This record gives sequence, structure tokens and C-alpha cells, in this order.
Amino acid sequence: MSKMWGGRFTKKTDPLVEGFTKSIQFDKKLAEYDCIGSLAHINVLKKAGLLTGPEYKKLEGGLKSILESAKKAPFKVDDAFEDIHSYIQHLLEKKVGKAALKLHTCRSRNDQVVFDTKLYCLKNITVTLDLLSGIVKQLAKSANANARQAMPGYTHLQHAMPVSLYDYFGAYVEMLSRDAKRMSNIFDNIEIVMGAGALSGTPIDSSKYSVKMMPGCSLCSPANAMDAVSSRDFIIETLSALAIIGMHLSRMAEDLILWSTKEFDFIDIDEAFCTGSSLMPQKKNPDVLELIRGNTGKLYGNLMSVLVMMKGLPLSYNRDMQLDKEPLFSSFEIIQQELKVLAGLLPKIKFKKNNIARQLEDECLYATDMADYLVQKGAAFKDAHTIIGKLIAYKLKSGKEIKKMGNEALKKFHPALSSKVIRKIIDPEQSVKSKRSVRRKKR
Amino acid sequence: MSKMWGGRFTKKTDPLVEGFTKSIQFDKKLAEYDCIGSLAHINVLKKAGLLTGPEYKKLEGGLKSILESAKKAPFKVDDAFEDIHSYIQHLLEKKVGKAALKLHTCRSRNDQVVFDTKLYCLKNITVTLDLLSGIVKQLAKSANANARQAMPGYTHLQHAMPVSLYDYFGAYVEMLSRDAKRMSNIFDNIEIVMGAGALSGTPIDSSKYSVKMMPGCSLCSPANAMDAVSSRDFIIETLSALAIIGMHLSRMAEDLILWSTKEFDFIDIDEAFCTGSSLMPQKKNPDVLELIRGNTGKLYGNLMSVLVMMKGLPLSYNRDMQLDKEPLFSSFEIIQQELKVLAGLLPKIKFKKNNIARQLEDECLYATDMADYLVQKGAAFKDAHTIIGKLIAYKLKSGKEIKKMGNEALKKFHPALSSKVIRKIIDPEQSVKSKRSVRRKKR
Amino acid sequence: MSKMWGGRFTKKTDPLVEGFTKSIQFDKKLAEYDCIGSLAHINVLKKAGLLTGPEYKKLEGGLKSILESAKKAPFKVDDAFEDIHSYIQHLLEKKVGKAALKLHTCRSRNDQVVFDTKLYCLKNITVTLDLLSGIVKQLAKSANANARQAMPGYTHLQHAMPVSLYDYFGAYVEMLSRDAKRMSNIFDNIEIVMGAGALSGTPIDSSKYSVKMMPGCSLCSPANAMDAVSSRDFIIETLSALAIIGMHLSRMAEDLILWSTKEFDFIDIDEAFCTGSSLMPQKKNPDVLELIRGNTGKLYGNLMSVLVMMKGLPLSYNRDMQLDKEPLFSSFEIIQQELKVLAGLLPKIKFKKNNIARQLEDECLYATDMADYLVQKGAAFKDAHTIIGKLIAYKLKSGKEIKKMGNEALKKFHPALSSKVIRKIIDPEQSVKSKRSVRRKKR
Amino acid sequence: MSKMWGGRFTKKTDPLVEGFTKSIQFDKKLAEYDCIGSLAHINVLKKAGLLTGPEYKKLEGGLKSILESAKKAPFKVDDAFEDIHSYIQHLLEKKVGKAALKLHTCRSRNDQVVFDTKLYCLKNITVTLDLLSGIVKQLAKSANANARQAMPGYTHLQHAMPVSLYDYFGAYVEMLSRDAKRMSNIFDNIEIVMGAGALSGTPIDSSKYSVKMMPGCSLCSPANAMDAVSSRDFIIETLSALAIIGMHLSRMAEDLILWSTKEFDFIDIDEAFCTGSSLMPQKKNPDVLELIRGNTGKLYGNLMSVLVMMKGLPLSYNRDMQLDKEPLFSSFEIIQQELKVLAGLLPKIKFKKNNIARQLEDECLYATDMADYLVQKGAAFKDAHTIIGKLIAYKLKSGKEIKKMGNEALKKFHPALSSKVIRKIIDPEQSVKSKRSVRRKKR
Repeated sequence: MSKMWGGRFTKKTDPLVEGFTKSIQFDKKLAEYDCIGSLAHINVLKKAGLLTGPEYKKLEGGLKSILESAKKAPFKVDDAFEDIHSYIQHLLEKKVGKAALKLHTCRSRNDQVVFDTKLYCLKNITVTLDLLSGIVKQLAKSANANARQAMPGYTHLQHAMPVSLYDYFGAYVEMLSRDAKRMSNIFDNIEIVMGAGALSGTPIDSSKYSVKMMPGCSLCSPANAMDAVSSRDFIIETLSALAIIGMHLSRMAEDLILWSTKEFDFIDIDEAFCTGSSLMPQKKNPDVLELIRGNTGKLYGNLMSVLVMMKGLPLSYNRDMQLDKEPLFSSFEIIQQELKVLAGLLPKIKFKKNNIARQLEDECLYATDMADYLVQKGAAFKDAHTIIGKLIAYKLKSGKEIKKMGNEALKKFHPALSSKVIRKIIDPEQSVKSKRSVRRKKR
Repeated sequence: MSKMWGGRFTKKTDPLVEGFTKSIQFDKKLAEYDCIGSLAHINVLKKAGLLTGPEYKKLEGGLKSILESAKKAPFKVDDAFEDIHSYIQHLLEKKVGKAALKLHTCRSRNDQVVFDTKLYCLKNITVTLDLLSGIVKQLAKSANANARQAMPGYTHLQHAMPVSLYDYFGAYVEMLSRDAKRMSNIFDNIEIVMGAGALSGTPIDSSKYSVKMMPGCSLCSPANAMDAVSSRDFIIETLSALAIIGMHLSRMAEDLILWSTKEFDFIDIDEAFCTGSSLMPQKKNPDVLELIRGNTGKLYGNLMSVLVMMKGLPLSYNRDMQLDKEPLFSSFEIIQQELKVLAGLLPKIKFKKNNIARQLEDECLYATDMADYLVQKGAAFKDAHTIIGKLIAYKLKSGKEIKKMGNEALKKFHPALSSKVIRKIIDPEQSVKSKRSVRRKKR
Repeated sequence: MSKMWGGRFTKKTDPLVEGFTKSIQFDKKLAEYDCIGSLAHINVLKKAGLLTGPEYKKLEGGLKSILESAKKAPFKVDDAFEDIHSYIQHLLEKKVGKAALKLHTCRSRNDQVVFDTKLYCLKNITVTLDLLSGIVKQLAKSANANARQAMPGYTHLQHAMPVSLYDYFGAYVEMLSRDAKRMSNIFDNIEIVMGAGALSGTPIDSSKYSVKMMPGCSLCSPANAMDAVSSRDFIIETLSALAIIGMHLSRMAEDLILWSTKEFDFIDIDEAFCTGSSLMPQKKNPDVLELIRGNTGKLYGNLMSVLVMMKGLPLSYNRDMQLDKEPLFSSFEIIQQELKVLAGLLPKIKFKKNNIARQLEDECLYATDMADYLVQKGAAFKDAHTIIGKLIAYKLKSGKEIKKMGNEALKKFHPALSSKVIRKIIDPEQSVKSKRSVRRKKR
Repeated sequence: MSKMWGGRFTKKTDPLVEGFTKSIQFDKKLAEYDCIGSLAHINVLKKAGLLTGPEYKKLEGGLKSILESAKKAPFKVDDAFEDIHSYIQHLLEKKVGKAALKLHTCRSRNDQVVFDTKLYCLKNITVTLDLLSGIVKQLAKSANANARQAMPGYTHLQHAMPVSLYDYFGAYVEMLSRDAKRMSNIFDNIEIVMGAGALSGTPIDSSKYSVKMMPGCSLCSPANAMDAVSSRDFIIETLSALAIIGMHLSRMAEDLILWSTKEFDFIDIDEAFCTGSSLMPQKKNPDVLELIRGNTGKLYGNLMSVLVMMKGLPLSYNRDMQLDKEPLFSSFEIIQQELKVLAGLLPKIKFKKNNIARQLEDECLYATDMADYLVQKGAAFKDAHTIIGKLIAYKLKSGKEIKKMGNEALKKFHPALSSKVIRKIIDPEQSVKSKRSVRRKKR
């Protein structure tokens, strides 16, 4: 297939090499952004006097019509081409003839591909932010809807202290809100530039590069051309932020998987969000959540692959960098899919209140409240901790409920203890309410 | 699309979930192995009396014809199905009717997919071993063809001591031979089993599972069914071995990239294995080598993704494990492509002997030989090291060649030194030959 | 501090550089192996006529006495030295005077450090294999001791089919036995060599390097000197095998953590293997298991760090490689600690049989057995799967036990069903026993 | 050693477990921040009426004196304690007696350790920002000092087009400035909170937590207590930002290593920043730069280890999280060391202008300028690219300099070409100056 280079070559590229070096199978996802970039570029060329009015018109028409098809998924490309840039060049030559040969004036694929990838990032950060905002709203809704539903809180997966579903979902509201902040910082830091050429700039004056490209996004020339063509930190920090989102979602998935076991049995996940087994007729598996947990592997792997690829590369552009795109596309797609499917799954979760209530009967959950009560009654905390620890040990060994031990037995541990006091303390709603240190935000 | 489960479900799977959980877009690569497995499985069912003779014949015929199409790339699949197993089940039902409903007797996709993946591994290890053996032969050939060609040896990328191209290529012969040994150990450790069911085995007696499957590969039942369906160490160690191969190739690539710079200018890479620039007409870039270097990212990322995915998974099968396949396929494909393209590139490298010879004139390369000479003349090594270090410092400061310093000057450093001695020492071939400690293998 | 180089340098090393480049803070762990290597090396030097008898005796005496102290932990080193090699050289000079200046004849730290690290590996693989063998024996013991104890088997963490603790522990016997096989293959592949010099060999004839070093381990000269000093695949494959062990242990840890939750409540972990909370008096946390799970992070990170470090390094030795040791030491230490602590924890686990039995009452666990029964009675498996799926759906919707549905209701699903049949099928021991496909090994 | 828990325990912790679970060997680095936290905490307790005035005074005095010693490195700790919190508690009990038993009132180590780690982060981000700002200034200085020094620009490590050292160093100014921006965003996002308790808050009113802690840093209570104790995204994003800095520095290191080879010979690195060889007397190795390159391994590994550790952890705190600290400390220390040592190395680099000038004679470097000239003369760029490509091919095949080809020969390629034109184009300074698209910032 026609290449964008070749004058100095007297031999044909080995077919193995063509197969090994081509990128069109994945960079076709940049088609839309490549057209947008070329439209901006011809604007620059016209301002610089390197295109006549009619040439500009022709090219503009051709590029706009390619852009139209590129926007309609699926955009069919011819895999025989080296990359999406060559393929679009080829389409344009077919459409507008000789004028197309001027398109690549003062431009290198080195700067072109960074432009495309940055635009792809901006677009997909926006999409991701919308999805994050949706899921945060959904979590807040779940929090509010179950605001008074207490449940056992866990540390080390052991019963710790009562918490509320409001707090549980609120924790994820916080995490995903920070994730959104992180994505949004990345958006702000991406500078869309043109004019870096291969690595050293172009003969066109930098002022000509100030063109408007689309609403809210204007273009400028780079502060440093070598940096512009050979830096990929914007990709790595994007992959890192996406990996962190995936990590957060993997934790939520883990909890929901646990809660839907027969042993916990706290929730029911809607059938439409589960799958079955080809062998075991009874199965209703939380596959969606497992895949969300498992996808952390791919998300971390994607991040690692670009970090590794960039390690120790001399300036400026090296072909290794072509390998930055697949991981980026993959991580965005994973996170966007996960957020979408969770947005469907979450509101349909049913809480099995009786089962949760049964676990809240565990007196151990209130041990800290008992210690706090002794502190109120003047004990030093460390002493109170030891006293209640012994009470718990006694309870477990004797198999007796603390509630039913009787005043005499209780007062042996501490004079301020009594059955009445204990009964007041062992109350999940009261326990949650008594934790006044949290600045619960209105949602 | 028709699923392999569903009796207990009253709702339809949410379309988002279908998109999110399906694997046919990548596990279609297992089609061939899935058919082979099903052929073995019906053999077992027949022996266990769970299929009649005519049913067996029908199923065998149907599976063999699907196997034929699966072997012919590209095997078109209908992406609307959940996975390759469902799709082949569907094809079989269309081909042989009701008998197909018996195929999945005493079988779970949990064991089926491990079977398929192990067979895929065996096949691709064999292919990789052949390619490794080819490249090792090519390296040995390059070593022998340039056996007497000395070159500067480097440590810290600084001139160290003369070595020969025989030694240089020989180093990679050793590395890649160890890689082959590693792959071959993995091959030996993979046990192809059937009969694990979902996690606990099947009602069929284990003796029935001893069927021959294909020449050189016989099947048996598992020693432990939970292990059989839920272990993936064979994938991780394969990915690790492939990552190590990629690491070795990245080092060779780095050296060849350096040698083809204008500044080193030691080699010429054939045009058919280079590509050009869309902007800079003079460019002939070693892209193939850069991509080999850059692919380490993907290879490491693939390894990492399966390690992460498996972390902390409870027994036995979890859906997370579906994500083991894409990384495995990707790493095999990368390494096989790299080995093929290197096999084409290596024999066409041209050594620019004059440029290499010019670097061999660097007297610093022979400093260790000088110290060794002083040791021979009775100096303690540490003293000899200091003396020659000072001689080098003097050379660099004064800008004089040691060869031309004259006896008087030399003897100030050590009485055993003289112009004649120095001239004898500064001889790359002699320097290489004098290193008698290496057991150079005949190749 | 006195360095092993410096003749050509006229300036002192910048203190920042000394701090940044030194390795003694971690390579001091190689002290013992360094002495063993030097003892072999002086043997070679003597045979090559580069040491006199008395010099040899002196050096041997000095090295042996340093070796003695090095074997006694903790071996105090002076952190002001660059590395362990310089420090031992310094000790030797203090002990034996001038003869010590000959020690480094025909040797480079490049080959010395590989020698030391390989010996360290062999030693620690042996230790790890012993620990693995211990834990495998313990697991087999736990399997045998609980051979008839059925429990719910899980896939997707949902009740799947009954299994036995024999099978559960047996799964880990298989995994860890493969791990041992892998470690043992690595042991076999490590070739201990000497005589590579800096990168190109030494003037000493290769035959002189055939010295015995210690029982069962003899030394030879390298087949390729550049490979010898600059390859680290033995470290990477060791780190990979250790990471896989850690992954396996993380899965066991996860299951045990789940089983010790209040909700599962299948096991009791001995207090001596748990820790408490500074705030919550009731807490008894499975910290050991959590750290085993969490350590996968470090183990994977260690593997990744050496893979990354080696990526794209030109031949031969580069200082980057100094960073291979900390991760190696760390991963061995983690795995050895984990195996030791598990060997203490496992035999003390108490199974709460009543709680396990309660879960085994879940009729869903026997759905596959019911389908298998219908297959026996002539149904095609896919039909049987659908029928039982519907039965389960009915059970769940109606809240009725299948056992108590009565023959009439059951026969609506399939004529072969009856209360009697169902009662026979719903029997955990019977269910486990009926799975005859597994080649259960005698242990 | 005295623990902060234990009342309910009747057995002693197994010594293996103590060794395996303790963290004091690394969390001792938090001593200072732990004291600051406790000082804030007693303030809260006093406001909440849980400490009397005299108790407060005592505790304040004790904590301040421990803080003083903690600030003085090295702060000796007793490794027999479980963690730094227990050790400081122990010191305090020795100092102030019974009042110390009240310190841990309404506090858990879960929130304490997050507080400490966040404060550690803030401090170390500040230190890192200062070092980054120093190196950016140094790079700008190097850029300005060599503003007119042209050099070959590389893509694919092949001669591309002339650039200037101003541009080269400027590229790193841009990268490291973005790195600083990233670190500074992380600083802004870290919210220092207290009052989360173990996971559910404390009985103290949230308003009491608004205490000033130190200038510029005030404390508040958390918006969500579960999130506060169990989130570690602040650590992961810090590790990611540090990994990116390390990646950038590895690229600079790679270039400087290349430039200091005998073959490039563009620069001389000061002896005080190089080290030698124990075998080869002539060696002056760029070890510092190699370690900077190699440290990417550790930095990436550290990032990976925390990402992996956090994957799939259920809420809220789990002991796995203890393993977040070593990687964090390690990455900060590496980057701070690298920035310090580079700040010393960079200003002492000497450029070998003659050697650079020799490479600038390569006519291929000006091929794009020639094509641009033809575009100016009316050629379509793609045609110009082909024409100059052919001219280069002819030059290389014939071995002739373009400059000396003569007008007749040149005009065969394009009528606008002539010896005069070529001589004007082949001028490195002119070539750099002609690239007017770059917005070179004043520095």
C-alpha cells in the first residue's frame, strides 16, 4: 500500500516488517481526531500562504467528508495500510487529487499522532467524567435510600462496629469523587499543540498556529518541539488514574460478591445482572462483579506497559511509542464499560434486612461502645479496653450473652456496668448515631 | 443468542451485561482446541455408556467438520454468542440436531476452557521452540561468520576490552538457549486433563478418561478437580518465560540500534527491514528493533495482568479467570512475530569493518591487558591496576598516545613497560585470543 | 573509604555519588558467598601460578576466618564502604597484608557478584524447597485428617457442589508441588561459573577453573563471558516462581479469611496466630493471612522491578544491574516467612463442623446431582439442566424445600423425580463419593 | 513487648507471628508525624472534656519531648515493639505515667496511621517540589548557557534535523515542570483528617476536631470515616507521579550515557560523578546515570506493589494496607536522591563542541530543509519529499557530498536546486533559527 515515505528507499519493505510495524488495526480509533487535526492544519497552511484558497477549499471539503464517515461507527479501514494517517491521506488523494499532496507540508506523523491522541484523551476523559458523575449520584441515592439501615462494619473482615449503608455508600462517593477530581486535573494539564514538526518545529511562524479548532478548544504552537513529540506522561497519568478507579471499583465488587454469598446473604443482585452455569442448574453468579475485580489486572498491566515502554528512551520520538495507544484505548473502554454496567446494577440491589439484622445481634460489635461508656464513667481508655476485652473473653468462653449475664457478674468487670446499661449500648442505630465525629455532608 | 444456561432465570440478561461478560471476541482463537476436546469428551461419554453408538457417530461427524473449518483461518464466528463454547454448541445443534444436547453431559465450561487453553499453550510452545531454535542457529551462523572480527567490548557503554563478534552473538546463543530450556520445561509440566466437572469431578469413572487424543498427547483425569479448574500457574509461568525472551531480544535490539547510529556506524541494516519518515526524506529508521524494544512493555504488562487477576481469588473457579486469555495470546503472538522478523533481519546485517577498526585503536581498551602484563612481571594486581590507571590519566591529560610515549616515559610508570611491549599489547586480535578462560563451545 | 579502583582518577568522588551508588547496605547479605568465591578464586590463581604457596596459605587463612564471621548473623559491616567486595578486601588487607593485593588478579566485580548471587540463589532455593515440602506435608495431613468432612464447594463464591476438605487441601498440595517443581528446575539451570573477568574472560586457561568448591557444587569456566556477566534471567525466573507461590498462598489466605468471618464461621484460627485492635476490645484479626495476601504486591513489584531494570540494556554489564539484589532478597525472605508462619497456623485451625453442616443443607448444592440423575434416566443433559433449573426457580420463588414438595409437584418437572429420589440425592457425603472421575492420589 | 491490645487474648502471640506482622522496622520513619498527630489528638480530647487540664499538660510535655528526639535523625527505636505507635505509647507511659493510658481514647491505629502517612507525604512532596524547582532552574541555566550550540536532533536515534542544546534542555524543563504540577495537585488533594476512629467515627463532636496543627495546616474531621481509614489512592497517585519523574530522568540519563560513549563523545562528565572498575584501570563509568535509569525498575515496582495490594480489598481497613509504607518511603527517597545528584552533575558537564560540530556536517540532517525549500518554490510537499529522498539515495550510493555535486547534477532532481542554495541550507544555526513555529518561552 502506498506509504507516506519511500523516496530514498530502493528496496520494498519486507512483508514481515509491514505486518510487524503497522498500527492501523488499533489506531483506526483515531480517525475522527486525525481529520479534525488535518482541518486545523490546513487552516495554518492557508494562513502561512502554503495553500491557495481553492486548494484549501478542496482539502477542507475532502477532510470534512472523511470526518463524517469517521464519526459513524464502525468506520471501515483498509488494514493493508501502515496506519490511520496513511489511510486518510490515501482517501483524500482519491477524493481531491493533487491538492492532497500538500496536506503533509510542515507536518510529521510524530506531532500528528500526539495531537490525535491528546484529543482522544480529552474526549474520553469527558465521557468518563460524565459516567463517574452518574455513578456518584447513584451511590448517593443508594446512601440516602438506606440512610437508617445499619449493618455490621468490618475491619480485617471481622465484625468491628455498626455502620450504616449511608456510610458504606458514602465511602465510595468520596473515593470516586476524588477520582473525578484527578481525571479533571489531567484534562486541564493536556495542552493541545501543533507545529512541532518531526522534533524541531516548522518554518511557519508560531502565531499562525493560533486557530480555533472546536468550541472550547483552541490550538497553539508548542513551547518545546522535542517535548511535544516525545513526551507521553499525559498517557501514563491517565492510565494511572484509570487504574485507581478500577481499584476502587474492585473493592466495591469484592464487598458485593461477599454480600451475595449464601453465608452473608445480605443482598440480592438482579438476575438481569447475573449469569448461570452450563453444568450447575441452580447457579446465579455475580460475573459482572467478578469481571470488574478481574479487570484490575488489565488496567494495571496497561499502565505498566506504557511505563516500561517509555523507560530510558532517548529523545526525541522513537517507534516504541507507537505502543502507547492500545493500552490507553483498552483502559478507557474497560472503565467506561464498568461504570455503565454498575450504574445498571446498583439501583437494583435488594437488601435482605432480616439477614443483616441477625448479624447486628453480635454483641462483639458493641465492645468499643462499652469501652467508651467506661471512659465516660472515668476509666482511662487503656484500662477500659482491657476490662471489656476480658468481658468478651468471658462471654466467648462461657457461651453466655452479655445482655443476660446479670448485674452481679457484670459489676465484677467494672462497677459502672449493668444489664440496663448493656441493653442500651447494644443498639445498632444508637451506636451509629453516637459517632458524632463525622462531618456527614448533605447530598 | 442461545445460552448454555438459563433454566432458573426468569429475566433476560441485560444487554450491557452481555457485552461486558462475553469473551467470544478473543476466545474464538480456541475453536480448534475446543473441537479436539469435545471429540475426546464424546469418546469418554461413549465409554461411560452415556452416548449410543449412533449418537457418537453423529456428534463425531459434526465436530470433525467444525474442526475442519476452525483450522482454516480466519474462522468466522458470530460475535453475538457469549463464548466460543456456546457458538460451537450452536453450530453442532444446527448440524446434528438433538444429539448435540448430550454433548455437555458431565462437563463444565470450567474444565473445558482449561483444557482448550492448555492445548493452545502446548501448540504455541512448540511453535515458539521452533522459532527459537531457528534464531539460535542464525546467531551461531553470524557468530561463526564473523568469528575473527574483533570489536570494542563495552561495560557501562564505555570501552572496556576487545571482544569478538563471535562472543557477542554467542552471548545471545546462550541466553536464547536457556529461554528454550525454560519453555520446554513448561511444556513438560502441563498436564492435559478432563473430568474435573465444575469443581468436584463427574460421576464417570476416572479410568474412562484415559483416551488418546492425538499423537503424542494422551488425556487423563485430574488428581484434584478444584486445582484443575482454578489454577493458572501454567499461564503465568508461560507469560514470564515469554517476557524474559522479550527482555533478551530488547537488549539485542538496543545494541543494534546503537550500532546503526551515525555515531557508532558499525552496521548497516537492510532497507527492507527499515522504514522512513513522512517528513524527513533522508530517514531510514530501525523501527523493527525499536518495536522489539518497546514490546517489552506489553509483555511485562501481560504477565502483570494475569498475576494481578489471580491474586487472592478464593477457590475454585471465578469469572475473573476469563481474563487470562487475551494476555496469553498477545504475548505468544508478539514473541513469535519478533523471532520471525529477527530471523529475516539478522543475516542481512552488514558490518562496517573500517568503522569498527577505528574504535579498536582506542588505547584505553588495552589497559587491562597492560595490567595483566605487569602481574605477569610480578606486580600485585592492585598495584598494577593503580600504575596503569595513572598511565591512562597521564595519556588523557597530555593528549599523547601511549604507543608514542617512548621508553623513558613509560618506565617511570613501571620498569617492565616499553614501547615494544605496548605495541604488542595493543592488538585487538591478540587481546581476544589471550583470554583463555572461556570454554568456547563448538557450534 | 578505600576503593577497588581510582588510579586514573584525580578527583575524589562526590559524597552524594558515594551515597547514591553504594550497595553495601544490602549486598552485605552476600558476605558468606563472596568468601566462598574468593576461596575458589585463589585456588585458580595458585593453579595458574599467579600465587605462591605461602601467599595462597595466607589468603586462605584470612578468607576462612572472614567466612566464619560472615556465617554468624549478624555480620557487622562498615557502611562507609562501597560494597561487600570492597569491605572484605579491606578486612583481608588488614588480616594478611600485601598478599591481599593479589586477590583481585584476573577477576572483576562483574563476575564476582554474579557468582555470589547465584550461590545465594542455590542456597535459598534449597531452603525454600524444604519449607515447601514441609507445608505440602502439612496440607496432606490436614487433607487426610478431614478426609470425610464435606463442605460446600464454591465457584464464583456461590454454592456450587459439595466437596470435601480432603479435596480442598489437596488442591493446594497440587499447586505447591508444582511450585516446588518449578523452583527445582531453576536450581538445575543455574550454572556457577568463574573466569568471565569484566566481560571477555581472563588470561588463565579455562581448565584451571575446574575446582571443587563445596560438596555437590563444582565450578567451571563460562561458555560465554559476556553472557556470564550480563545475564540475569536466573533472577527473574526465580522472582517469577516466588511470585507464583505468593499468589497461591494469597488464595489460601483469602479462603481462610472468609471462613473465619462471623458470617461463614467455618473455622477458628488459634489466638497465637491472630492479633487484636488498639480500639476495639473484641477484635481477633487474621492479620497473618491478610499480610500473606498483601505481600503479593511486594512479590509482584519485586519481579517487575528487575524485569524493568533489565529492559533494553546494552551488553555487557551496566551499573543498573546492581539493583537486582534487593528484590531478590526481599522475595525469598517473604516467601520463607510465609511458609514458616503458615506451617504453624495450619495445624491449629479448628473446623466448626456444625456451621459447615448447616450450609450443606442448601438444596441448591445438589442441583447438578439431580440433573445427572435425570441423564441417567435418559434425559439429554441440556434438557435435564433446564428442568432442574426450573425446579430451583420454583423452589426459590415459593420458598419451599424440594425435599418437601411431594411427588406430585416433583413429577411435573420430570416423571423420574420423587421425594425419595431427592432425599437420596441430597446427601453431601454421597454427592462427594459419587464423583468418581478424580484420580485421588494416596498420600 | 507491651501491646496496645490483648484483654481478650488468653494466649501469647506466636513469635513467628510477631516477626511477620511487625512494622516498626520501617514505620519508625513516621515517629515525628505520630507525635504531631498525638499532640493534635490531646487537644481534641481536652476540648471534648476527656482530659483534665493537668493531664493535658503532662501529655503535651511528654509528647513534645519525644517529638524533639524524633526530629533528630537517627531516632533510635526498640525493634521489639510492634510498630511506632506502640513504641511511642511506651515511651510516653515511661515519661508521664498513668495519664498516658488516656492517650488512645477515641482513636484507632487505623486513623492514626493514615494521619501520619498523609503528613509524611505532604512533607516529602514539599521537599520534592523544592528539588524539582532546583533542577528545572539548573536545566534552564544549561539551556541558556548553550543556547546557540546546535547539535544533531534524533528521532529513532538516527540523525533527524539540527536542534539546539537550548531546545534539548528545554524539553526536560517542560517535562519536569509538568511533574511539579502533578505533585502539587496531589498536595492540594490530600485532606488531613482525624476522628475516623476504627472505621465509624468517635463519640466526640466533629466541631472539636477543628484544631490548628501547625502553620498552614489545619485539621478537620472526616466526611466519611470508612473512606478515611481505608483509602490509599493518595499513596498510589504519589507513587505514580514519582514513577513518571523517574521515567523522565531515565531518558535524560540514557541520552547522557550515549553522549559520553567514545563513539558519540559529545560530553565529558566530571570525574567526581563517575566511578571506576576494579579490573579495568582506564574505566570512568557513568554509574550515577545508569542507576538513575535502573531505578525506574524499583519505582515502577513500588507503584505496582501498592496497586496490587489494594486490589479487591473489602472495606474498611485490612492489615494488607500496612504494606503501603515501604514502597512510598522508597520512591520518595529514590527521587530525592536522584534530583540531588543530578543537580550536582548537570552543571559540570562539558560539551565537546568539535565532536558535535563534526556530526552536524552530515548533510542528511538538512534533507527536510531542502524539501521545505522546494515547497517554498512551489512543489507539493509529497513531491518535494520524494525528490529529496532520491537525492539522498543518490548521495549515499555515489558517496558524493551534495554540496559538491554541481548545479547540473542537482537540477536533474529539481530545477530550483543549486550548489549555492544547498550551501545556504546546510547550516545548523540557520536550520535551527528557521524553525519559527516554537513559542520559545523566556527563561
